[in-house]
Amino acid sequence: MTGIDAPTHPFDTAIAVEYTEAHQLAGHTCPDYANMVGPFGGVTAAALLRAVERHPERLGDPLSLTVNYTGPIADGPFEITARPVRTNRTNQHWLLELMQDGAVAATATAVFGVRRDTWSDLELTMPSVPGPDEAVPQIFPDFIAWGRNYDLRFVAGAVPDIESSAGIPENPDSVSTLWLRDSPARPLDFAALTAMSDAFYPRVFLRRGRYLPAGTISLTVYFHATAEDLAAQGTEYLLGRARANRFGHGHFDQNAQLWGQDGTLLATSHQLVYFKG
Amino acid sequence: MTGIDAPTHPFDTAIAVEYTEAHQLAGHTCPDYANMVGPFGGVTAAALLRAVERHPERLGDPLSLTVNYTGPIADGPFEITARPVRTNRTNQHWLLELMQDGAVAATATAVFGVRRDTWSDLELTMPSVPGPDEAVPQIFPDFIAWGRNYDLRFVAGAVPDIESSAGIPENPDSVSTLWLRDSPARPLDFAALTAMSDAFYPRVFLRRGRYLPAGTISLTVYFHATAEDLAAQGTEYLLGRARANRFGHGHFDQNAQLWGQDGTLLATSHQLVYFKG
Repeated sequence: MTGIDAPTHPFDTAIAVEYTEAHQLAGHTCPDYANMVGPFGGVTAAALLRAVERHPERLGDPLSLTVNYTGPIADGPFEITARPVRTNRTNQHWLLELMQDGAVAATATAVFGVRRDTWSDLELTMPSVPGPDEAVPQIFPDFIAWGRNYDLRFVAGAVPDIESSAGIPENPDSVSTLWLRDSPARPLDFAALTAMSDAFYPRVFLRRGRYLPAGTISLTVYFHATAEDLAAQGTEYLLGRARANRFGHGHFDQNAQLWGQDGTLLATSHQLVYFKG
Repeated sequence: MTGIDAPTHPFDTAIAVEYTEAHQLAGHTCPDYANMVGPFGGVTAAALLRAVERHPERLGDPLSLTVNYTGPIADGPFEITARPVRTNRTNQHWLLELMQDGAVAATATAVFGVRRDTWSDLELTMPSVPGPDEAVPQIFPDFIAWGRNYDLRFVAGAVPDIESSAGIPENPDSVSTLWLRDSPARPLDFAALTAMSDAFYPRVFLRRGRYLPAGTISLTVYFHATAEDLAAQGTEYLLGRARANRFGHGHFDQNAQLWGQDGTLLATSHQLVYFKG
C-alpha cells in the first residue's frame, strides 16, 4: 500500500459536475447541503462556477459571477449548459443555465480573466473584532442541513434562537459579523469562496427575530482574491460581514464581505432576496 | 393646430429599441450618449431594460438587472435578443444578448416582478448634505459626451480637473456624493434610474487624481423603487453616492446608491471595473 485516498469532502461531492458534451454538464444535488427548500443557493452557485472552471477553453480565474435563481431545484440530477460567449485577450464571458426536468432552475453569467500587477489599495479594511476562539459557535436548526457544513462563529447578529423560551427581540439593524470556515476544514478555493459569499442567512430573520419564508432571487459575487491570496488562507477562518440596505414590498438587498485573517478582502457579494411577512 | 409634439428627449432616442421578431429587437447608438470608447454603459443597460419593458409578455416591474459588457460597441445599429426563460406567479427571469456584427457585445439577466405590501424599513438612510443649489456643477471634458446629458452637482469627490494648471492631488478615499438629474430634465422612470446607477465615473480617477483607461465589466442594479416611488420624484435631483472597496490586479469594484430628495432609497448598484496603470 503506497497511499490511502483521503475521503472526498462533502463540498466537492455537492459541486461535482462532469462534462457530457462540449458545453453541457451533469450534476446532482447533495443532501449534506440541503436548505429548507432545495439545495443551499451557495452550493448551486459554486457548481455553476465549477462548470466554467472545468471547461477546457476557460481563460484565467473568476472575476465575477451572477446567479439568478429562477425556480425551485428538486433533490436529484440536473444539467448545466456553459457557453463562452466572448473571449477577449485578457477576459472571457460566460452564459450558463441550470436545467431540471426541462425547466430553467437557474441562469448565470460569469466573467473570468487574467490578473496583472497594478496600483492597488484596500479601502474596506477588516473590522477589528475578537478572534474566532472568543466568538459564539452557531448551531443552526436541524432543518437547515447545509449549516452543519460550516463552522460559524458569530461576533454579532447570530441567527435567532427559535428554541429559546424567552421572547426573541427584533434587532435594530441587519448586521451580522462572523468567522466562518468549512466543516470539516477544507483549503479555500474560488468555489468555496463563492458558497461562503452566500452563507449569511436572510437579514430579515435578524430584523424580525424569527424565521420567515425567504429566498435569494439574484446573487452576484466579485472575486477580489487572486489564486495566491486564496492559497495563503489555507483552512483558516474568514471574517464575514453582511447587512441589508432597504426592506420593502416583498424584497430586500443583502451585501456581504469576506476577509482573510490577514486582512485581505477576498470577495464581496450582493443579493436580492424575496420574503413574506 | 391642436397640439405640438414635445421634442423627443435624447435619452429616449438613445434607448429606443423596436421589436423586429418575437424576441429580437433593433437599436442604434446615439452620439449624445457617447463615452470615450463606444456608448455610455448606463445607456446600454437602460436599452436592455427597455427591451424587457416593451415585451408583450413582461410581468411587473424591474427588480434586478445585471449587464456584462463583453466587448466594445461601435457607433451604429445593434440587435438585442430578449428571452423570458421562466415566468413564475410573481416574478419573471430574462436572458438578453446585445449583438453587433455577429459578435456578442453585452449579455444581461433581468428579474422583473410584482411588488406587494410587506413589512418595510430603510437602513441606509440618505446622507445629510447641502442641497443641489449649494453644490458645484460638474463640467466633464468634451470627450465625455454623455456627461453633458446630466446635471451633476458634486458635494464631494468631483471629477479631477484635467485642465487645472495646479497639480491634481490623489484623493485619500474613493467617495463621491452628488446630486444628479437628466439634462434637459426628464421625469424619472426605471430606464433613467438604470442609467443613473452607472453615472458615477470610475473611482480610480478620483483616487489617482487623473484619467486612466478604465471600463465597466459587469454592472448590477437592484431596483428598490416602486413605480409610485419613481412617479413621486418627477424631475427632481436624486442624491447619489459611490465608492470602491478594493483596487488591485487591474480591477476594482464600485458601489453606488441613489436616493430621492424625500430620502427614499431608489436603487443600489454594484460594478466591477477594469483599469490600467
